[in-house]
Amino acid sequence: MATTELERLLRDVAAGRVAPGAAARRLQGSTFVDLGGVTLDLGRAHRTGAPEVVFAEGKDEEQLATLARACRDRSHRMLFTRLRPAHVDALLAALPGARHHARSRTLVFEPAKRPRGRAGLTIVSAGASDAPVAEEVLVTARFLGLAPVLLQDCGVAGLHRLLSRLGALRRARVVVAVAGMDGALPTVVAGLVPAPVIAVPTSVGYGPGGSGLTPLLTMLASCAPGLTVVNVDNGVGAAFAAARILGARR
Amino acid sequence: MATTELERLLRDVAAGRVAPGAAARRLQGSTFVDLGGVTLDLGRAHRTGAPEVVFAEGKDEEQLATLARACRDRSHRMLFTRLRPAHVDALLAALPGARHHARSRTLVFEPAKRPRGRAGLTIVSAGASDAPVAEEVLVTARFLGLAPVLLQDCGVAGLHRLLSRLGALRRARVVVAVAGMDGALPTVVAGLVPAPVIAVPTSVGYGPGGSGLTPLLTMLASCAPGLTVVNVDNGVGAAFAAARILGARR
Amino acid sequence: MATTELERLLRDVAAGRVAPGAAARRLQGSTFVDLGGVTLDLGRAHRTGAPEVVFAEGKDEEQLATLARACRDRSHRMLFTRLRPAHVDALLAALPGARHHARSRTLVFEPAKRPRGRAGLTIVSAGASDAPVAEEVLVTARFLGLAPVLLQDCGVAGLHRLLSRLGALRRARVVVAVAGMDGALPTVVAGLVPAPVIAVPTSVGYGPGGSGLTPLLTMLASCAPGLTVVNVDNGVGAAFAAARILGARR
Amino acid sequence: MATTELERLLRDVAAGRVAPGAAARRLQGSTFVDLGGVTLDLGRAHRTGAPEVVFAEGKDEEQLATLARACRDRSHRMLFTRLRPAHVDALLAALPGARHHARSRTLVFEPAKRPRGRAGLTIVSAGASDAPVAEEVLVTARFLGLAPVLLQDCGVAGLHRLLSRLGALRRARVVVAVAGMDGALPTVVAGLVPAPVIAVPTSVGYGPGGSGLTPLLTMLASCAPGLTVVNVDNGVGAAFAAARILGARR
Amino acid sequence: MATTELERLLRDVAAGRVAPGAAARRLQGSTFVDLGGVTLDLGRAHRTGAPEVVFAEGKDEEQLATLARACRDRSHRMLFTRLRPAHVDALLAALPGARHHARSRTLVFEPAKRPRGRAGLTIVSAGASDAPVAEEVLVTARFLGLAPVLLQDCGVAGLHRLLSRLGALRRARVVVAVAGMDGALPTVVAGLVPAPVIAVPTSVGYGPGGSGLTPLLTMLASCAPGLTVVNVDNGVGAAFAAARILGARR
Amino acid sequence: MATTELERLLRDVAAGRVAPGAAARRLQGSTFVDLGGVTLDLGRAHRTGAPEVVFAEGKDEEQLATLARACRDRSHRMLFTRLRPAHVDALLAALPGARHHARSRTLVFEPAKRPRGRAGLTIVSAGASDAPVAEEVLVTARFLGLAPVLLQDCGVAGLHRLLSRLGALRRARVVVAVAGMDGALPTVVAGLVPAPVIAVPTSVGYGPGGSGLTPLLTMLASCAPGLTVVNVDNGVGAAFAAARILGARR
Amino acid sequence: MATTELERLLRDVAAGRVAPGAAARRLQGSTFVDLGGVTLDLGRAHRTGAPEVVFAEGKDEEQLATLARACRDRSHRMLFTRLRPAHVDALLAALPGARHHARSRTLVFEPAKRPRGRAGLTIVSAGASDAPVAEEVLVTARFLGLAPVLLQDCGVAGLHRLLSRLGALRRARVVVAVAGMDGALPTVVAGLVPAPVIAVPTSVGYGPGGSGLTPLLTMLASCAPGLTVVNVDNGVGAAFAAARILGARR
Amino acid sequence: MATTELERLLRDVAAGRVAPGAAARRLQGSTFVDLGGVTLDLGRAHRTGAPEVVFAEGKDEEQLATLARACRDRSHRMLFTRLRPAHVDALLAALPGARHHARSRTLVFEPAKRPRGRAGLTIVSAGASDAPVAEEVLVTARFLGLAPVLLQDCGVAGLHRLLSRLGALRRARVVVAVAGMDGALPTVVAGLVPAPVIAVPTSVGYGPGGSGLTPLLTMLASCAPGLTVVNVDNGVGAAFAAARILGARR
Repeated sequence: MATTELERLLRDVAAGRVAPGAAARRLQGSTFVDLGGVTLDLGRAHRTGAPEVVFAEGKDEEQLATLARACRDRSHRMLFTRLRPAHVDALLAALPGARHHARSRTLVFEPAKRPRGRAGLTIVSAGASDAPVAEEVLVTARFLGLAPVLLQDCGVAGLHRLLSRLGALRRARVVVAVAGMDGALPTVVAGLVPAPVIAVPTSVGYGPGGSGLTPLLTMLASCAPGLTVVNVDNGVGAAFAAARILGARR
Repeated sequence: MATTELERLLRDVAAGRVAPGAAARRLQGSTFVDLGGVTLDLGRAHRTGAPEVVFAEGKDEEQLATLARACRDRSHRMLFTRLRPAHVDALLAALPGARHHARSRTLVFEPAKRPRGRAGLTIVSAGASDAPVAEEVLVTARFLGLAPVLLQDCGVAGLHRLLSRLGALRRARVVVAVAGMDGALPTVVAGLVPAPVIAVPTSVGYGPGGSGLTPLLTMLASCAPGLTVVNVDNGVGAAFAAARILGARR
Repeated sequence: MATTELERLLRDVAAGRVAPGAAARRLQGSTFVDLGGVTLDLGRAHRTGAPEVVFAEGKDEEQLATLARACRDRSHRMLFTRLRPAHVDALLAALPGARHHARSRTLVFEPAKRPRGRAGLTIVSAGASDAPVAEEVLVTARFLGLAPVLLQDCGVAGLHRLLSRLGALRRARVVVAVAGMDGALPTVVAGLVPAPVIAVPTSVGYGPGGSGLTPLLTMLASCAPGLTVVNVDNGVGAAFAAARILGARR
Repeated sequence: MATTELERLLRDVAAGRVAPGAAARRLQGSTFVDLGGVTLDLGRAHRTGAPEVVFAEGKDEEQLATLARACRDRSHRMLFTRLRPAHVDALLAALPGARHHARSRTLVFEPAKRPRGRAGLTIVSAGASDAPVAEEVLVTARFLGLAPVLLQDCGVAGLHRLLSRLGALRRARVVVAVAGMDGALPTVVAGLVPAPVIAVPTSVGYGPGGSGLTPLLTMLASCAPGLTVVNVDNGVGAAFAAARILGARR
Repeated sequence: MATTELERLLRDVAAGRVAPGAAARRLQGSTFVDLGGVTLDLGRAHRTGAPEVVFAEGKDEEQLATLARACRDRSHRMLFTRLRPAHVDALLAALPGARHHARSRTLVFEPAKRPRGRAGLTIVSAGASDAPVAEEVLVTARFLGLAPVLLQDCGVAGLHRLLSRLGALRRARVVVAVAGMDGALPTVVAGLVPAPVIAVPTSVGYGPGGSGLTPLLTMLASCAPGLTVVNVDNGVGAAFAAARILGARR
Repeated sequence: MATTELERLLRDVAAGRVAPGAAARRLQGSTFVDLGGVTLDLGRAHRTGAPEVVFAEGKDEEQLATLARACRDRSHRMLFTRLRPAHVDALLAALPGARHHARSRTLVFEPAKRPRGRAGLTIVSAGASDAPVAEEVLVTARFLGLAPVLLQDCGVAGLHRLLSRLGALRRARVVVAVAGMDGALPTVVAGLVPAPVIAVPTSVGYGPGGSGLTPLLTMLASCAPGLTVVNVDNGVGAAFAAARILGARR
Repeated sequence: MATTELERLLRDVAAGRVAPGAAARRLQGSTFVDLGGVTLDLGRAHRTGAPEVVFAEGKDEEQLATLARACRDRSHRMLFTRLRPAHVDALLAALPGARHHARSRTLVFEPAKRPRGRAGLTIVSAGASDAPVAEEVLVTARFLGLAPVLLQDCGVAGLHRLLSRLGALRRARVVVAVAGMDGALPTVVAGLVPAPVIAVPTSVGYGPGGSGLTPLLTMLASCAPGLTVVNVDNGVGAAFAAARILGARR
Repeated sequence: MATTELERLLRDVAAGRVAPGAAARRLQGSTFVDLGGVTLDLGRAHRTGAPEVVFAEGKDEEQLATLARACRDRSHRMLFTRLRPAHVDALLAALPGARHHARSRTLVFEPAKRPRGRAGLTIVSAGASDAPVAEEVLVTARFLGLAPVLLQDCGVAGLHRLLSRLGALRRARVVVAVAGMDGALPTVVAGLVPAPVIAVPTSVGYGPGGSGLTPLLTMLASCAPGLTVVNVDNGVGAAFAAARILGARR
């Protein structure tokens, strides 16, 4: 078996090329800051190639404001999702220049100007009720450095709506397909394009299987090749996966 | 409120036009024969417009043979479904001229020649694994006096397979759409044709939602107008509904 | 295999009988209008024989008002369902002559006088708690050009209530049966009448299986022939299917 | 608060009227015999008014044979249920005079002649596939000293079958109603008779909700007054409850 | 087969002893009053031995007030359950002397003095959180003419609480046992007393299986003989079953 | 078999060493006080080694205030959990010196100074959203006489956060691991430390399996040895089990 | 709106550059062959960039042999999955040179030599019981032209097993992570590497949530960024998605 | 924060006190042996204090035999669980002196004599059908160095059976309570004893909630303090937790 990364680091320590404390921090990734129960992970971008996203559900205003102030003081960019109105107020107070996206319940803090995003992602959604999740994909993808195209209201119950956008879909290098109700859109898309398709079920629907179970199961059961799935309403996760896929090409 | 059927019958009894016993039998529909725990319903065709179908699951060979012999002795036509091999042996012994359809596990006993079936039903199925259920629809529909058209292997993961059969689908007066896995076929069909579409989920699939739950939920959640659903693998039920819609019972 | 519709269209294009743009629009059904994330489908009535119905759940007031103004400007008739009070206010402001049905949470916009509806549909409901869904069937069926009969509070726990309406039920050419709780009404109805029966489970009930799961499962499991089912509380879907069935008999 | 049974016993002990060991045994009900992991409860009939029933599922032949021999040696009557063929062989070897009921997979050992059973119980079942469970109710009820009436194949999809037996049902002092599929029979029965109705869902059915979930939920959701439910296929439990009810009326 | 009730009635019609209209009404039980979508069933007490109970969930104030006024005008006693505060206001306005029980969300209208209730029912509940359901059993049982004993807070996690009430339990002729959380109380009770035990699971609990699923399943799975179950929180159903068992309807 | 505790007590009664009433009370553990439907169990600490904890969900303010006053009058220490704001107001009015912990929705009443807690318990939680449950474990453990260590925000999606706290975890004699979302933390912990690990799933998450089902199932399915699980959000239960393990009850 | 692909095709038809039949075939993708209920899709590789894979579950030997012979006659490469022993016999008879992989129940038919696969995919599995699914990913990925690395038995309950393979994982451009039981492996992997991670839950496990539900839910709920999921045991789907991701880079 | 274990190790490396390779092995715990897809973990006993247990479900005979031979060659003790008959044959061939326990489907290989087990664990089971799981606890606990007491057939439907064993239960320092069906036993036990109670639900039962769901939910919902739960039929897990608890008290 070849020499592992770990052995190399330990040899560097043994040879005095790396100090024990630095090695420990590297092994532990201990570039994070403990803010009293909430942790700000400064080294994450280096380690996994992605900036931090804060899922606000279940956190209180005090926890979010603590994180926001730590970001601001370090000029650390950050995305907050699943915000309640009280969350938004607390964050806007702590992060004056931040941008709030109401429909997707997200807030972006970008302390510095960023270069133009990378092309290749197309987001397609099934109905107008899926707009909040489609926007969460859009906002997150932009935050991660992509420049996505968005095609809305293309559900397969009226197939012509989808077929008329086929050109734009075929040009994508990765597709995120967002659908609630019967969740059939990603299957049809993956049968029409050669790119990987990330399916996002939404909690749009009613009756048993409503709240996203039906589209989730449909997407998992799809016979279309090249389809993968994220959790219900998980626009953030889909955007992250798309960014990793597009990033993987460098 | 107008005079009901019941009041009319009772007036006939009061006027001596109908004997009490006959009225009781009519009210009770008591044209059925008790065969020791199993009941042969001779009046059913008159009452609901449909001959008897025997669901074999959970019945033993003895029960089926008793029913078969009663049919034979009365020249009563009958359809048996969900047969195990032992069932088939018992029935063929009791009903020499009966016809066994292996893939759909059905058996038809037709003691007399029947007129040509009525047109108007198109059956469309998603994949080769759905063939047993599609055949159950076919056999049952023929038993009920229809002459259906069958289009197989039209799943929406390869949309062109369906689109090339669009002409035949558009000519149908009622469509039965059979699909397992993601169950998206009936939604797409109902968006393309003006006829009522009866969706039959099949137990083809795997993982959570396998055994038919996923296609059932998808079909129920469909936004396509004019779609109704029957139970998983219930080809008999779909054929009956189609026959009622076409008014084939006359 | 015979010449398909598609080939015929393409031959017309090749022969110059149809212009390429027109053919593309016909193939794409591209008579829809993009209103910024929401799509108004003007060609739908031609394609599937049904006017547009807007499911309001998950849409915001702005999206609905945009659609409403587009309808009004084109004198396009439309039905809105699952409305919250704020939705109703936004729609009534945009569509002055529209009619709001509070119990079923629907709103109908009919810019022009319509001919008398077609007879043949009977709606039967199990209990007073099912009234909102029964009314959704009623309103939708009228919007689709039918003239339904409505029989309420006929649950099978007191069988005499149903039996006294048997005459009206037997005259129907299609029955929509609405029931929550144990959902047994459609089974009993389908055993008594020769017409196709569309069962609508409602979210009336409590305990495990409440919110409509129990009546949905009961209706799917029914042994009564000729019964099909739509999703929980899906009065719109039942009315659409009934309209297609009655249309199919012409 | 009045003197409890327990205090009375302890006073008897204090007064020397009852020996400590006897009191301990009474408190512990320690009339049971430990047979090496399986326990034979000799005092049960005194304590709860019911003889012992052995549920064979999950027990091996050795465990059953040990119990059988202990019964035989004490002339203790016993009912065995849910027997596999190997169980039956082991029991018949140990209990020569025992009676095996194949359809219900039960075996009864009655070492002595018993008086004629008490009337008042009517068992009604929906379909021929429910026969094994109906027979389990019948065998158990007889074992418990009742003389039940059995009405089979009365499902509500053909209502006349039930209505023609109404007289027998109305005479019952307690009804056990057995049904699979949609499970609607007990609801209709409880709406027609004044006696308490015990509903037994059976594992007859298919699709989601098959294996008894659908009829169980239907019976629980029933609006019919006076209906109670036991577990799926639990014919023994229904018979025990019926016996307690008939006992309670003395 | 003996002469049925129905045949006897029809003979009476044929002989002129009963008028056709009266026979129709008797067959149809048509002593109910249609109040515009809500039905008041005046003949129910005769037919099933029980007065009417109105389940208010899903009904609006207008529907309830209509029923209330019809009761008042006919001096018809009635019980209303699952009331929201607005329901209570509407009912108290229409039925001045009615009695509202806040904890169980019930309201009783008794236009006339009633005789003393029949003894024999003991209600036992597991915890203080189960009090609303236990009170629903109590109020309903009194409305049905019983005089129940109520034992509260006897959960089996502290077994001594139950054992100290054993005397009262053993004197009961029927027991209703109410429990949420793990739902083990009815099993232990049924092992200690010879009376039939009706188990009522309550929606007290949390986590998967909360909202009553866990105690419902526990009660269904119980090995204790003589136990039957009603739906979650269905205090009314338990009281009705107890009344039928005690035969209190006379 | 050796002499049981019970026999010894009865011998003492027979010998006059223990009075019958005292024996009855001991057997019944009847040191509880009936407060009108709510029971205060004074003997519980002796019997099971634990003071009383009141689960407030489903109880009304009146019930809680009654319990609170009974505690205060007897200088009985008590912990209240799952409090709504109105509960807190009622309790603080009745128990002036009590301490309210807002995040965990708990309230502690300690009428007397208590000795320093016993060491050995480490609480570790996965994310900031799990803080309320982690605090419930903390407050309860202190109430039970422990002095726990709390490590927060150690989710395994960023493994370095956990690995950097390994020292503290390895020193624990029992670990309570709190996690929502995917619930993987306890598995990883139990693979790293030799102490017993009690896993607490939290209702943090979304999509199917949200509300705690996913982490509960994950924890149950864990292959890590020495892991046991309590119900979703059941911080109290975990603390009790930890206290029993440490034998802190003395 | 720009000229779509479709309009361009139609203009070509109008200009005589493309014959109507060819256009129809292109629009319909009608390069498939109907083999009597089973369809062989020859144009699929062109359209979606992937050769055909046949899912054998639910198909009978005759259907598979028909497909196999059609492949052989056209020198068409193909992968068969989920094979039962009888399937394997039928296929080996029809496709002499095919290769059967017993553990993964797959069979590959490659009529011609293929170039060396493309690097970049690492497959990592949690336990030895997951080997069949890991092998299905391996076989499918090779069939799709990849040259994957396979790391087995790396479950997180013994974290050191995973950490020792970190080097190989970090070099991957896409990772497929296969896990049953608690399904925590993909979460930990996605937190350690920058590549996209495709999680495959397996049906390894027991108890509620066994058969793959638990790992599926865990993977969906994961907080690790860049993780997507396929259906339980769907090794084929994961390999297809990986191939599309790696293919997208060209 | 104090110096962590990791920093200490790295300082040792920097100081030359520990060689880099040894440190890497220690960090990686790389005392495991790769046996071709199956891993034998030799360092596990040191790391977590427990020898290896092999869960045989989903593994084939070849995989087990490879592990068995590796154990034998290293005189490594091992426990195999969930064995099918073919597994047992393969293992007994490879491990001549191993001991097979048929009822619990386990096999123990102990190459050397072991000291007498540690007392303190009592195992109590509800019914004879729970014997296989109770024996799995027993065998595993002995393998882990404990000397458990086993009390069988103590279900709470006959409470006296449990109460008569109270002495033995009260002497335990940790209790494992095994129960299927309604799963109420652990709740009652935890209310009677001061020791921690580990509840093991078994897959004994039928109907919805059978296969262990009902007892699992019951045990999770228990109000008894000090109760924790393991997965259905997970006797191994319960024994491991008990061993860790008894170890924690030293």
